[in-house]
Amino acid sequence: MTVSISRVGEILRDAEDVLILTHIHPDGDCLGTGAALCRHLLSQGKRATVVNGGPVPKKYDYLFEGLPQETFEPKTVIAVDVADTTLLGDLAVYADRVDLCIDHHVSNKLYARETYLCPDDAAAALSLYRVLRTLGMPIDKPMADALYTGLSTDTGCFRYSNANAEAYRAAADLIELGADNAAINVKMFETKPISQFLLLSDAFAGLRLFCDGKVSVLKITQEMLEERQADEDSFDFLTALSRQIEGVVCGITMKQQEDGHYKISLRTHEPVDASAVCALLGGGGHKRAAGCDAGPDEEESLKTLLSFLAEQLGCAV
Amino acid sequence: MTVSISRVGEILRDAEDVLILTHIHPDGDCLGTGAALCRHLLSQGKRATVVNGGPVPKKYDYLFEGLPQETFEPKTVIAVDVADTTLLGDLAVYADRVDLCIDHHVSNKLYARETYLCPDDAAAALSLYRVLRTLGMPIDKPMADALYTGLSTDTGCFRYSNANAEAYRAAADLIELGADNAAINVKMFETKPISQFLLLSDAFAGLRLFCDGKVSVLKITQEMLEERQADEDSFDFLTALSRQIEGVVCGITMKQQEDGHYKISLRTHEPVDASAVCALLGGGGHKRAAGCDAGPDEEESLKTLLSFLAEQLGCAV
Repeated sequence: MTVSISRVGEILRDAEDVLILTHIHPDGDCLGTGAALCRHLLSQGKRATVVNGGPVPKKYDYLFEGLPQETFEPKTVIAVDVADTTLLGDLAVYADRVDLCIDHHVSNKLYARETYLCPDDAAAALSLYRVLRTLGMPIDKPMADALYTGLSTDTGCFRYSNANAEAYRAAADLIELGADNAAINVKMFETKPISQFLLLSDAFAGLRLFCDGKVSVLKITQEMLEERQADEDSFDFLTALSRQIEGVVCGITMKQQEDGHYKISLRTHEPVDASAVCALLGGGGHKRAAGCDAGPDEEESLKTLLSFLAEQLGCAV
Repeated sequence: MTVSISRVGEILRDAEDVLILTHIHPDGDCLGTGAALCRHLLSQGKRATVVNGGPVPKKYDYLFEGLPQETFEPKTVIAVDVADTTLLGDLAVYADRVDLCIDHHVSNKLYARETYLCPDDAAAALSLYRVLRTLGMPIDKPMADALYTGLSTDTGCFRYSNANAEAYRAAADLIELGADNAAINVKMFETKPISQFLLLSDAFAGLRLFCDGKVSVLKITQEMLEERQADEDSFDFLTALSRQIEGVVCGITMKQQEDGHYKISLRTHEPVDASAVCALLGGGGHKRAAGCDAGPDEEESLKTLLSFLAEQLGCAV
């Protein structure tokens, strides 16, 4: 069941030996929220620690500076930013005993005993910030840094449509509470592994445009991925760039898998419904982002998508 | 002389037939501030128009939608975001008769009869927003869009260190007043000309690293610039990326000029003082961004810089 802030206050007040869980592929929001909550509980004299659903990228190390890495049998288990127990990864053992979940995903499965769910929040960090502020709890600099990190990373540094007035206002408050916003954003947004730039260079060297420049196609081979030692993040970065080309309303990225066949990712602007296009090949997703499998002949599959797009956009392939 | 908000209020109230001036190479801040001020004056039943110090990139067209493009002999001249009359470009004819300047550059020359100068503001748009709010003036959706545009573009979408708490709070207010922040940010930050991606691809294909990966070197030839039809913006974009490579503390970009010789641009992180490095070749600039001329042999000049950097960073070239 979902609960109000005052009930969250009771749970936090009564919590003892608290294990805070984040999700697989931990990101700035679950880590920032987890770290801030841990610091709050420690400041109340409680034992608390954060355990993560997967390995934590090094760039987030600052969130955990000075936090004790204790192992203990928890009496209270709290999940942050975890919409479903399938996202607990290595922590699935706790799936049945989550006492409280603080989350902002509308898709939250309400698997926890009690859930503070705020689907309009840009980040779980915003939900936790509201809780702490409403309860009159102090927020020190490390907590402000952690909450700002969650808010900034989940909004693409306040760029995406989920960055509403409350998100901006919370950021203002957190900066006044000591969050080092500029340094955090350099770390989160202005530093990329070299593999990312090299893969980008390779991919754009083979850029193809169709439909009067409205459709872009990037093709990434296993050879490129191996040569550049590129990871999943680099691929996500490229996929996002595919629709940032001026005039492009549909960015298609084809990525070769280890077995040699291709997967296709679409990122679109109005009026292209990415999910409808991918459905042609049995795939799916959202309006602005979707994917499908390219089957045995990726260029044939691409032709199928391009014909459909040309018809929809009223242009020749 | 500098003046207070209440005096700005008097000037705006008494203004008639107002010409609003922006600077050469108009950016989101001068254009957004100019457009918002123009809309305010029109709403007060005055005649007003914005004239720009140079050609306005197409992506800013939305700021001026529905604004009359009148020509008239001005009775009041107001400059926005213009620190010095040398930045008026084609509008230098008005240099001696600027009645009011609204600006946030600490370097403002106080050339106007009266100047509302706020050097702590992230953008002139923030200064104007404070004026309008303090005076109790209504802000409609097009004004909110324009002011948000100024604030967002001058802070790199709230990423830079100038984005302080007041900037975030003003953005929150403007979103509540109707600013379409997500759409504006897509237009400003998520759309780049294809030439930019292609030049990036070319440049990174030849990326060189020195000093254990602490120094990156990108070399851009005239051939690349011509083939990709790349403009100055594309070069700025590359220069910025040169120091975003993980581990790099000094990004060096060498750009061939039309006469064949090279100019060098440096972007650095702590502890490299870009200005001190460029001084070796007679150049200069700021701590984090500086430039110099590479002289007749650019590779020799590069060696000079690399030797100095290797010594400073304690590594082999």
